[in-house]
Amino acid sequence: MPEHFVGKPIVRVDAAEKVTGTAIFGPDVVLSGMLYGKILRSPYAHAKIKSIDASRAWELWGVRAIVTGDDFPGILGGEAMKDLPFLAQGKVRYVGDPVVAVAAESLEIAEEAIKLIQVEYEEIPAVFDPREAMKESAPIVHENHHQYQHIPVMKPVPNSNIMTVSEFSKGDTDQGFAEADCVFEDTFYSHSIQHAPIELHSVVAQMTADGKYTVWVPNDGPHRLRKDLSDALKIPLTKIRVLSTYIGGGFGSKGGLKLEPVAVALAQKVNHRPVKIVNTREEEFSACVVKHATYLTVKTGIKKDGTITAREVTSIWDAGAYAEKSPTVCMQATAASAGPYKIPHVKLKGYCVYTNKVIAGAYRGYGVPQVTWAYESAMDVIARKMGWDPLEFRLKNILREGDENPTGQPVHSIGVEECLKKAADVIGWEKRKNAPAPAESYKKRGFGICCAAKNTKTPSGAAAVVLLNQDGTANVVTSTVEIGQGAKTIFTQIAAEVLGIPVEKVCVSNPDTDLSPYDASTTSSRATFHMGNAVKEAAEDIKKQLCNLAGEIMGCPGDDLIAEGGEVRPKDQAGLNKEPLPYKQIMMKKYGAGGTILGRGFYYPEVKTNGMWSAPSIFWMYCAHAAEVEVDTETGKVDIIKLVAAQDVGKPINPVTCLQQVEGGAIMGMGAAMSESLIFDNKGRMLNPTLHDYKLPTFMDLPDLESFIIDAPDQNGPFGAKGIGEIVVAPTMAALAAAIEDAVGVRIKEGPLSEEKVIAGLEKLESGQEAR
Amino acid sequence: MPEHFVGKPIVRVDAAEKVTGTAIFGPDVVLSGMLYGKILRSPYAHAKIKSIDASRAWELWGVRAIVTGDDFPGILGGEAMKDLPFLAQGKVRYVGDPVVAVAAESLEIAEEAIKLIQVEYEEIPAVFDPREAMKESAPIVHENHHQYQHIPVMKPVPNSNIMTVSEFSKGDTDQGFAEADCVFEDTFYSHSIQHAPIELHSVVAQMTADGKYTVWVPNDGPHRLRKDLSDALKIPLTKIRVLSTYIGGGFGSKGGLKLEPVAVALAQKVNHRPVKIVNTREEEFSACVVKHATYLTVKTGIKKDGTITAREVTSIWDAGAYAEKSPTVCMQATAASAGPYKIPHVKLKGYCVYTNKVIAGAYRGYGVPQVTWAYESAMDVIARKMGWDPLEFRLKNILREGDENPTGQPVHSIGVEECLKKAADVIGWEKRKNAPAPAESYKKRGFGICCAAKNTKTPSGAAAVVLLNQDGTANVVTSTVEIGQGAKTIFTQIAAEVLGIPVEKVCVSNPDTDLSPYDASTTSSRATFHMGNAVKEAAEDIKKQLCNLAGEIMGCPGDDLIAEGGEVRPKDQAGLNKEPLPYKQIMMKKYGAGGTILGRGFYYPEVKTNGMWSAPSIFWMYCAHAAEVEVDTETGKVDIIKLVAAQDVGKPINPVTCLQQVEGGAIMGMGAAMSESLIFDNKGRMLNPTLHDYKLPTFMDLPDLESFIIDAPDQNGPFGAKGIGEIVVAPTMAALAAAIEDAVGVRIKEGPLSEEKVIAGLEKLESGQEAR
Repeated sequence: MPEHFVGKPIVRVDAAEKVTGTAIFGPDVVLSGMLYGKILRSPYAHAKIKSIDASRAWELWGVRAIVTGDDFPGILGGEAMKDLPFLAQGKVRYVGDPVVAVAAESLEIAEEAIKLIQVEYEEIPAVFDPREAMKESAPIVHENHHQYQHIPVMKPVPNSNIMTVSEFSKGDTDQGFAEADCVFEDTFYSHSIQHAPIELHSVVAQMTADGKYTVWVPNDGPHRLRKDLSDALKIPLTKIRVLSTYIGGGFGSKGGLKLEPVAVALAQKVNHRPVKIVNTREEEFSACVVKHATYLTVKTGIKKDGTITAREVTSIWDAGAYAEKSPTVCMQATAASAGPYKIPHVKLKGYCVYTNKVIAGAYRGYGVPQVTWAYESAMDVIARKMGWDPLEFRLKNILREGDENPTGQPVHSIGVEECLKKAADVIGWEKRKNAPAPAESYKKRGFGICCAAKNTKTPSGAAAVVLLNQDGTANVVTSTVEIGQGAKTIFTQIAAEVLGIPVEKVCVSNPDTDLSPYDASTTSSRATFHMGNAVKEAAEDIKKQLCNLAGEIMGCPGDDLIAEGGEVRPKDQAGLNKEPLPYKQIMMKKYGAGGTILGRGFYYPEVKTNGMWSAPSIFWMYCAHAAEVEVDTETGKVDIIKLVAAQDVGKPINPVTCLQQVEGGAIMGMGAAMSESLIFDNKGRMLNPTLHDYKLPTFMDLPDLESFIIDAPDQNGPFGAKGIGEIVVAPTMAALAAAIEDAVGVRIKEGPLSEEKVIAGLEKLESGQEAR
Repeated sequence: MPEHFVGKPIVRVDAAEKVTGTAIFGPDVVLSGMLYGKILRSPYAHAKIKSIDASRAWELWGVRAIVTGDDFPGILGGEAMKDLPFLAQGKVRYVGDPVVAVAAESLEIAEEAIKLIQVEYEEIPAVFDPREAMKESAPIVHENHHQYQHIPVMKPVPNSNIMTVSEFSKGDTDQGFAEADCVFEDTFYSHSIQHAPIELHSVVAQMTADGKYTVWVPNDGPHRLRKDLSDALKIPLTKIRVLSTYIGGGFGSKGGLKLEPVAVALAQKVNHRPVKIVNTREEEFSACVVKHATYLTVKTGIKKDGTITAREVTSIWDAGAYAEKSPTVCMQATAASAGPYKIPHVKLKGYCVYTNKVIAGAYRGYGVPQVTWAYESAMDVIARKMGWDPLEFRLKNILREGDENPTGQPVHSIGVEECLKKAADVIGWEKRKNAPAPAESYKKRGFGICCAAKNTKTPSGAAAVVLLNQDGTANVVTSTVEIGQGAKTIFTQIAAEVLGIPVEKVCVSNPDTDLSPYDASTTSSRATFHMGNAVKEAAEDIKKQLCNLAGEIMGCPGDDLIAEGGEVRPKDQAGLNKEPLPYKQIMMKKYGAGGTILGRGFYYPEVKTNGMWSAPSIFWMYCAHAAEVEVDTETGKVDIIKLVAAQDVGKPINPVTCLQQVEGGAIMGMGAAMSESLIFDNKGRMLNPTLHDYKLPTFMDLPDLESFIIDAPDQNGPFGAKGIGEIVVAPTMAALAAAIEDAVGVRIKEGPLSEEKVIAGLEKLESGQEAR
């Protein structure tokens, strides 16, 4: 029996490097002759740049370059919409906008130089709330933004701050609401937070004399970065090389154009030397990227039997000062904003709006945590008002195998019902009414349960090359970035499984866009699914070639042979009396010590639409979280007693790394729900851009946490596996809010779920008002 | 008409990087946390190591590791024969043998530490002349060397210094000599020189916590190095990663195991930090690798009409203290040692012999310069003695299309006759008797002309991957090293030609064995031929895929389409009325912005032997050099008036880079003939290991030099091209010696062609003896 490697909890292949501190992350990159860059940023949310005087900075020894937007006139970057100057041109649009950059022989000199640069600004009116920004009278963040180059799917509204509007509809919601017995409408607010990865953003960029740019960077899309820079600089893709370091946590923040444009700008001016820039933590918070603050209005029509007849969701996304990934976050999340329910009539609309705030972009879940917060809160509000069990109400409407989802796509391999049941079972949903009350009478217990669904970028391509070496070992070459999710481990297991060789004989390398083939990006939970399929195909391609070579040796057609367990042997039914040939022997016999076999795989899944729906996704992710909380009615303090996360993983390639994702996600979702929140003053200045003032959960804050993976093999996934990385954070906040309401009757509709809001809700309840 | 890129003299793609000094060569590699290594070397040619005391060195601050052979018991490396300890074990075998290595925080500390280490030796008898070393009484350099692991083709003679004997024969030389009217026999000596590349040998090695070794190195065979280290360390190939820097000249010296084993030894002991070692120039000369000193006896039977009936060549190769590449140098060169002539009866024998000298190995030509020196000198001696014109004698016997060469292989695509005629024409061979005599009566003019032939490593594999990007540009991924020969330029032209895209849109990367596919090595003049074919195949593979994709768009079979000039269109005869589709458009239509096409090529040429001959070569290289010299009979000084080099290139991919090879080769051949020579004392110590005492030619020494490329398209070469890099140095010394003899009657049979030898010859002539 051949040994199996898929489905086994092998130790992460990058574990030794990481625990010994030898793994190279972005800020670890040191090159010969390297200069250090520093950025002077705007202190104003919206201002014209009147003049820049860098003469005193130039007098400092060791200053090698000072660049401003004037050095790059008309150069605009961006993935979806090209609106991002390398450095501010003419005006600044948020507090933190890069205005001048310096490269110097040391970081200290660069910092000193920045202080010596005088910029004269003329402040102009700014807008910070996306709802305000949508008004006709609002200050315009980008004049004529509809003239920017943008992806075809975007619909910028001229002379406004509306960057794009995303719309999806199915059926006729007017009819759906008419058929309903009750219609509920509520608005929920998802607050802005920051990704706060351990590793700060960094980049090293060099322009060599042949006009080629090499960029060493912890960016989650090396090929996408190559394309973005190529577009901006108007040079061929082959003139840009991106080398990926390990990434010390990204959660969506480590993609797109962050420090890269500024580093490239400096690299042009320093006589071919490399230039390194590393964010400070303050820059990381206030001048990098944040999760969108989002207003979401959910309108639901239901029948008395609990059937949902129609749903409309209208969302407003605070994109901040530049488009970055906002257009596609808005689009993807809007498509997912009705939830994993059977709903015949759906109308979904998302407004993506510029404000004079720090750029918002991809945050783990790509907008789905925001929409989940809204539709799951809505489900609980409805259930509570109708006197239904929230779990039963969900199960009544939940999507099941073969159902058509709100965007019209028939769903398969769907484990959300089982996730809900598992989470309910473990949290003790049935017996919750009999749960013992807290000893202190001023403390109340409550339970909440929520689920979520997320789509993935479709279509998108992933290519892999597998090189079978003379000794029967294999090098796997992909452009998937190891961002902490364990992708290298997963590909190792897939290649080992297909080839039938031990995982120790497989090596997965980090991307280098000059050598590793195209991948769209390490985002959208697509590494295991998309690249996993490409690696599988490339390994299978090798086996086919091995069978053909062995056939030449054995004197039979390759089709009569099978490659398994590291050797090629006749298929059982082939009736050949031949000894099995180990791969190494096949290579030696055919090529001596000088052979190799090149396997290739390219996975580009297209989902055919039937014209009825326009948001296809090659797979959907599903999960459910359940929470038990204890609320102190005197202080408003919420203690999370227990958190349960159940995740549909398709089939786990590695159950332990799957569970780590699920656990990590629940903790991240808990932090986002309870304590994390970005606070701005009325000038658009972030007030808590430090790990001291911004409250990330620590291990001391962890509740009793139980995580489960649920099998629901995906027909298209490698070995049935699905991606899970993003969805794991989505339902936590709604589950916790439901548990709080269950405990004390206070429905919080605006994140975070703070003590103040609990107390305010309790006071309103006492005064006879509806809480909130 | 599609534009052509093959055959055009495009500017080298690495020119800008190199002239601006930004190209990264081995010694330029700087890594974070890097330590510096230094080697304590043996002062004795042959001695037992009694004790090593490093205690005082350990007391120095900044010393991080001190390693000796005891740290690596039984570990032996080597490509052909595993006889090389990482550091001397038990005894030293040449002056320069590495005994102890130190890694420290700075080079200065490492140098200081080395001085503080005490090694006690017991000197034992040594042997320096390979002819002496073959005697039974000789001191044995490697006891029981026949027990070393070695390649099957080697035949070590037990209890001797004979590492291997190479033999090739065809026909019956006894019969051939019996059929001859005259038999000539002479012994020639080819002296030892050093490659003297501008770039010193260097390496940076790191062992990470996962037990993986990464080596940054200017080594001409990254995959071969990976295999050599994998064999020695007994770990899978995937546990070693070799990253190739640019190489600042190698000429055969930059391959095999040089500083790599020592760096790897230190890397094991320094807690995962990288360790860098760079040779000094003195180490480069005396403790790295040199060209074999070789004794060659040529016995030739001829008929009065000038027909050669038989030839026996016996050669003795001074391999120095370790095998390195000597076994295959001896084998390849022995197979080529009869010259490019029609000879029915041939017996060729090469002895490869250990001595207590610095290791000899591959030198540009892989032993063929030595054998050419011998057989071409023999041709001139015979012609002179028989009163024949040396050119006519050669042309009488030269190999022509379809002839069987001395190893029994039928030859094709052979331009050696045309090379001889071109060189003769340009040097003025016909009119040489009428050439004006020098003004000074004590100066004499003379002319010489010689040719050469060289085989290439066969079989050997080369694999290439070509990645077609979304914008229609292409990344070419190979493991060929850019050693200065222009390989990146050649592959750029081949890929551009096949794909029909401008050379500016092609990028060829440097090797990284984790990502770039297998190649045997950048040696044996095989880059253009072998890897050129692999790149061509990979690019053609892309075109086929493009046609199939375009067929899906156009609604016709891919076979009806042709990819040309960067677009796909119907074949002329297909009769389809379809607009051509540019590659970029095909990609966009099929994959949006997210596509790629993976092309692959693997070239592994096998030459079927018929049992008659055992030294097949997929192609042979041919060239001819002619020289005009003026000899000062009073001082012996030889002025080279003119040097002409004519080179069969198959078909040039880039005529300018071909000519640069030919010119560079002639200059190198001239230096090797006239002024370069390694001098040892009677203790085996090199006396001139510096660029001051070792006389490399400078541009001031250049004669009037004319170079020509001759087309003789090779049936198997990419676009008819052949490799040329090694053969270009081979015939220079013999041509110059012939010209000296032509001028003053002095036949020098031992290199170099020094003034002293000319004077000594003239004195003998005056005293009535035959010169030498």
